[in-house]
Amino acid sequence: MTDTSPLAKKPVCQVGFVVRNIDEAAATLSRLLDIPKPNVIVTDAPDKAKTVYRGAPTRARAKLAFFQIGDLSLELIEPFDGPSTWQEFLDKHGSGIHHIAFQIQGTDRAIAWLQDEGAKMVQQGHYTGGMYTYVEGPKSLPAVLELLERL
Amino acid sequence: MTDTSPLAKKPVCQVGFVVRNIDEAAATLSRLLDIPKPNVIVTDAPDKAKTVYRGAPTRARAKLAFFQIGDLSLELIEPFDGPSTWQEFLDKHGSGIHHIAFQIQGTDRAIAWLQDEGAKMVQQGHYTGGMYTYVEGPKSLPAVLELLERL
Repeated sequence: MTDTSPLAKKPVCQVGFVVRNIDEAAATLSRLLDIPKPNVIVTDAPDKAKTVYRGAPTRARAKLAFFQIGDLSLELIEPFDGPSTWQEFLDKHGSGIHHIAFQIQGTDRAIAWLQDEGAKMVQQGHYTGGMYTYVEGPKSLPAVLELLERL
Repeated sequence: MTDTSPLAKKPVCQVGFVVRNIDEAAATLSRLLDIPKPNVIVTDAPDKAKTVYRGAPTRARAKLAFFQIGDLSLELIEPFDGPSTWQEFLDKHGSGIHHIAFQIQGTDRAIAWLQDEGAKMVQQGHYTGGMYTYVEGPKSLPAVLELLERL
């Protein structure tokens, strides 16, 4: 295993918010940022997304909306249909800031490196053109980090 | 009041994490981002910071550490010495992502505009060269937004 972190000097490319009602949240954020309300999209069906949550397949899906400001996108997420890191966050904390994301290459190696640091993989799934992995930071930094990889 | 949001098309300049132990969190983030561990600084004493939390003066202070990656800074915050939005977050949620920040001008007008949208001011304070204000987003988007103004 290399000593270099898979996140070394990488910019944060996304901040993700879990919300209860994506249409209301997107309307609010649209007014706050003075950016047109983006279309709400829905993650792929389970057979395509192949979502795994805490080690088991899940039928969980989510409605998503993205606001791009410069190099950073703000993502709104309204989960439905099954257990997920999004639903878990909503049940524990209510709406709020769920994760920061990094664009990486080599997901498996990145997960192994981060697990070596004490992080835990909590969810993984696929979408057209890529895959994502949520990792819970080590105990000293227990935020959710998202690894995005283009495939 | 103008119709234009004080945050209109502004980039997010900072993501803030509340943590229980800033030295451990900073060491972890330093390894993850492959960036040297920054110095931990301490917010000013109450007579200089003039911190107000939910309408009342507070002696709350915090240890801070900043990691700059491109245009975005990641801020670690370990609160101490009194009630604050940081301590409240830690008590309610544990360590995690507390806020996103925007650099603005005209704090009072910005607060008024955001309150008109249903947001609430939760904390304000001063530091050499500027002031900050934390605002809780409207009900549909209940994340903490920080307004930073250079003075």
